[in-house]
Amino acid sequence: MNQADLQAQPWQLSERARKLTSSAIREILKVTERPEVISFAGGLPSPATFPVEEMRVACDRILRDSPAAALQYSATEGYLPLREWVAQRYSVNGASIRPSQVLITTGSQQALDLLGKVLIDPASRVLVETPTYLGALQSFSMYEPNYVQVPTDEHGLIPETLDSTLTAGARLLYAQPNFQNPTGRRLSLARRTALAAFAQRAGFPVIEDDPYGALDYAGTPLPTMLSMAPDHIVHLGSFSKVLSPGMRVGYIIAPEELHFKLVQAKQATDLHTPSLTQRIVHEVVKDGFLETHIPKIRSLYRDQCAAMLAALQEHMPAGVEWNRPEGGMFVWVKLPQHIDTMKLLEQSIVQHVAFVPGGPFFANEAEHNTLRLSFVTVPPARIDEGVAKLGALIRAQV
Amino acid sequence: MNQADLQAQPWQLSERARKLTSSAIREILKVTERPEVISFAGGLPSPATFPVEEMRVACDRILRDSPAAALQYSATEGYLPLREWVAQRYSVNGASIRPSQVLITTGSQQALDLLGKVLIDPASRVLVETPTYLGALQSFSMYEPNYVQVPTDEHGLIPETLDSTLTAGARLLYAQPNFQNPTGRRLSLARRTALAAFAQRAGFPVIEDDPYGALDYAGTPLPTMLSMAPDHIVHLGSFSKVLSPGMRVGYIIAPEELHFKLVQAKQATDLHTPSLTQRIVHEVVKDGFLETHIPKIRSLYRDQCAAMLAALQEHMPAGVEWNRPEGGMFVWVKLPQHIDTMKLLEQSIVQHVAFVPGGPFFANEAEHNTLRLSFVTVPPARIDEGVAKLGALIRAQV
Repeated sequence: MNQADLQAQPWQLSERARKLTSSAIREILKVTERPEVISFAGGLPSPATFPVEEMRVACDRILRDSPAAALQYSATEGYLPLREWVAQRYSVNGASIRPSQVLITTGSQQALDLLGKVLIDPASRVLVETPTYLGALQSFSMYEPNYVQVPTDEHGLIPETLDSTLTAGARLLYAQPNFQNPTGRRLSLARRTALAAFAQRAGFPVIEDDPYGALDYAGTPLPTMLSMAPDHIVHLGSFSKVLSPGMRVGYIIAPEELHFKLVQAKQATDLHTPSLTQRIVHEVVKDGFLETHIPKIRSLYRDQCAAMLAALQEHMPAGVEWNRPEGGMFVWVKLPQHIDTMKLLEQSIVQHVAFVPGGPFFANEAEHNTLRLSFVTVPPARIDEGVAKLGALIRAQV
Repeated sequence: MNQADLQAQPWQLSERARKLTSSAIREILKVTERPEVISFAGGLPSPATFPVEEMRVACDRILRDSPAAALQYSATEGYLPLREWVAQRYSVNGASIRPSQVLITTGSQQALDLLGKVLIDPASRVLVETPTYLGALQSFSMYEPNYVQVPTDEHGLIPETLDSTLTAGARLLYAQPNFQNPTGRRLSLARRTALAAFAQRAGFPVIEDDPYGALDYAGTPLPTMLSMAPDHIVHLGSFSKVLSPGMRVGYIIAPEELHFKLVQAKQATDLHTPSLTQRIVHEVVKDGFLETHIPKIRSLYRDQCAAMLAALQEHMPAGVEWNRPEGGMFVWVKLPQHIDTMKLLEQSIVQHVAFVPGGPFFANEAEHNTLRLSFVTVPPARIDEGVAKLGALIRAQV
């Protein structure tokens, strides 16, 4: 929306709303819904992984056995058996998580909004990875912070860079340690340990956003920072990537003092997450379903990732770099400095190939020669075809 | 939470979070969940009105016919067939509402949060009824406005009082014209017309929050202000009182320029309302179900209301006043000036009778001799028993 559009508003908007601009990328990517487009742009999990039959049976059982409770208003904190399940699941590696620390959210996106509400004032400093999850920037930006970019490399955020110049006056540090969106990078064990130790002396919470942790191809997850510093880490989890994103069920595990404030903020925000979706999720997961289900997703995504890496190897010219994800849904590609991926997207869309340019994932200074490829929804043959087209476009410019 | 608790926070909270205090009333009312308590305190619809079987069949059909779409991420604006249904339903009395004006929200509470996000800056003036819906105060307060109380009487908000002293610099006016929570009052037709005309020249939107409009006992609804001034009224609707509150499905009908900003704010808040709950609601309502279902709710609530009014007539001493609602779920009771209903609640809880003191429903200066009674979930015999106890307590103090 340009300045003329802003002036067309008949009413005075809040400062935060005036700063909202419509995304040029979002406009371009609208075409990705057409079937002829090979889209590496989505952040969507593969619908092949949705446990449809289990959900249907669960919903049917809930509406037969406890319809009044499933359809009535319920507690802001969430459905207690689900909160207990989450607490139990995280009580590993010596950590003891209490249900009273768990708040069920309307997807993890709401967790970000609530943290912004409770922790950020205008001009508060907020530390984020370089690059970071675009949706977190969108949520936090509603509370008008000043972002500080924390340096990263192929092993994720670099804890050694967190000196007082960077961290003075910060309200939170936001990180995705597992298979980060957009880079697919995993924070190493040594750095987790260092960052958890940092959290214990920081004076502000470290947010461990972990939607992709279960999607570890080798099935050898690294310990969460929550397990290392449970009183100083705020952990965000989600059922979006292991069951269904359309259900919008996530959770925040936080120290009780902060939990209490988050509950109050949630009450003002949507009263509670739908009773039915919470109960469906609980009914599906309560007897160990994920122990057999998650390995299937891992296996599918591992194969999809291999197809993407093979295609990149085959079709990308020299000077193009990418990582080899050990889990998750994304690979991060770096082109020669002079190639602007926003312009590249305009060209590739004409050839029916879509991706997300890297620029919007940077809080401040962006690397415009980067892009994110999602590899979980496109069949391998089409992955090869799409990457070949993308490679040819890049080859013509190097 | 008292000052000592606030200081116990290990981290710096936002200004808005520091202002959040836990409600003494909420603490007292926790006991209302016990079966021996006769609770007039809830804002819950009667579970007898939930169309359980229709919901179960709808959910089953959706998860058989379109599971991938029902479980996948979906558009922030909401499920298009549901948006079309809403637009169609409001295109009456000469109004023409477009689906492009409809945003599906995670309950009406989220509509209030999004309006706060998009319209309110710290210290912005926000006009509210006297008294007003507590949940709206909670939502808007997150954006730190200065409230201005608009005078009301038994016919609702008094439009003649909206002079420039009251309205200068306001960002929005918030009203519940039908069977308001907490008073049960309905805004008269003449005042709707006047308020809609005011909206057209105000320079800020008038919010018409209408969760109870369908619960009109006589089935003779007054026209919405939306139908009178569709370019200047923002209308909030909900399925909570006609289908199920636990589903958390509501909607905002707004002029397109504002709709566009609300969509951006919602994207940052929870991405979208759950795909499944939206589709269940649409599947249940799409073929006219509400035309037979709503009259049943009306009839039940009319009888419940009659039982409450008869009990008040029977048991309240002289000097106690109340209104005779024409719809909705609440009656508003005014006691002699010297009786503080917060103290009365402490006494009545001992006798296992609960209500909500009126004080918290006032944005600024409160009338502490008021209280709200909900009459839809307690069986008539218990209504009489509860009101008799309450009447005896009051009688002892007049």
